[in-house]
Amino acid sequence: MTGRLTIVGLGPGAEDLQTPQARAVLDAATDLFGYTTYLDRVPTKIGQSRHGSDNREEIARARAALELASAGKDVAVVSSGDPGVFAMAAAVFEAIENGEPEWREIEVTVVPGISAMFAAAARLGAPLGHDFCAISLSDNLKPWETVTRRIEAAAAADFVIALYNPISKARPWQLGAALDLLRAHRAPSTPVIFATAVSRTDERIEIADLATADPSRADMRTLVMIGSSATRLVPRPNGEPWVYTPRRVEELVS
Amino acid sequence: MTGRLTIVGLGPGAEDLQTPQARAVLDAATDLFGYTTYLDRVPTKIGQSRHGSDNREEIARARAALELASAGKDVAVVSSGDPGVFAMAAAVFEAIENGEPEWREIEVTVVPGISAMFAAAARLGAPLGHDFCAISLSDNLKPWETVTRRIEAAAAADFVIALYNPISKARPWQLGAALDLLRAHRAPSTPVIFATAVSRTDERIEIADLATADPSRADMRTLVMIGSSATRLVPRPNGEPWVYTPRRVEELVS
Repeated sequence: MTGRLTIVGLGPGAEDLQTPQARAVLDAATDLFGYTTYLDRVPTKIGQSRHGSDNREEIARARAALELASAGKDVAVVSSGDPGVFAMAAAVFEAIENGEPEWREIEVTVVPGISAMFAAAARLGAPLGHDFCAISLSDNLKPWETVTRRIEAAAAADFVIALYNPISKARPWQLGAALDLLRAHRAPSTPVIFATAVSRTDERIEIADLATADPSRADMRTLVMIGSSATRLVPRPNGEPWVYTPRRVEELVS
Repeated sequence: MTGRLTIVGLGPGAEDLQTPQARAVLDAATDLFGYTTYLDRVPTKIGQSRHGSDNREEIARARAALELASAGKDVAVVSSGDPGVFAMAAAVFEAIENGEPEWREIEVTVVPGISAMFAAAARLGAPLGHDFCAISLSDNLKPWETVTRRIEAAAAADFVIALYNPISKARPWQLGAALDLLRAHRAPSTPVIFATAVSRTDERIEIADLATADPSRADMRTLVMIGSSATRLVPRPNGEPWVYTPRRVEELVS
């Protein structure tokens, strides 16, 4: 008997930003898998098994979840934000592709969630209001040269840039290098946003400019956003500006 | 007395993909503004005023909503998907920046939603599993040269590309031109996804390859996604493959 496996996006943190579809799946599952920190966000339920593991064990976690689903269980794999954005969904399909043939018969469903960049953008105004890209700064699974090439291309395209996985203990210098690269392409006044733990009780949002943006403002829970040449601040009487990128774009200058 | 204005993301369509935060705001509002097609998705409520308008009247709609909020009303402006992605949030901040000084005192909040590309990605697997960009193909508010430059840069970066606003009666040829551009950069077998009305009753999802992708498969409700060089199909016994982009990236070749 083949069960099912659902990869569920928990959203950025706040309960009221989690979709009813995600809640229904979490409630129905016999087994929950995930990075322990994310699993801790899901209320415990009698009769439901929880399989927490470390952040880095994505493929091992995906395989264990597929084994149980293949044996007939109703398995949910949780991700923070959206599971399709630098998260568990790609790991599960990679495990399927390289795994047991019968895993392809499992009913696999992905439940989308609010990804960190949209939660962050919403708190600031509309910084992602026009063309943008999302880049993971982690060079655990790709060469740093690929990261720099993508940043250069994003700069040439004048995209707003959202940087995921900006920094960790094992990757301390990459964010500084990325900001240095961008300083060669964008004005010193370009807004840079550090959005940490958005929608959680310890949320911290800071607006800097590219000239002085300090990489040490970011930690593992931070989404870093760099404006395009059009991204603007709208000052407010309370001193906290809105940030937005206009819908209208003039001809790019090279 | 200054009221408040909330820009609300309705998500892609299905009710269970709308966040509780969005529902709470829609329920509390005295006045709802939006493109009539999107407003029709919100249940009517006694005592609540509805101000529907045409798709193209974004700035006029934003100004009217700000007027009412400034006069003390509790106003919600609705968007499909996420309001910060090619939608009403940027229009509201643009209207504020160019509008009455007292509008800057309005309590403006953005409630994020599931944007079309994530709803589409979830239905297919994990096509956005690694670095990606989102580009609006509309040249109503930007020169077509800017669009082509961004597509060229996205191709150089080997991003997965999500195309919003791919086609309309007034813009019939742009999607074909974009696909032609990409054919010069990516393999003929690159997956191209046409995801129309995702999560609604008339949802239609098609997987093509870049060599033969037919722009006429898209309409105004379609999100078009073009894979990176790494995006893959995983065949299944039922004949409907999953599509995903691996987390691991080899060195880019130019």
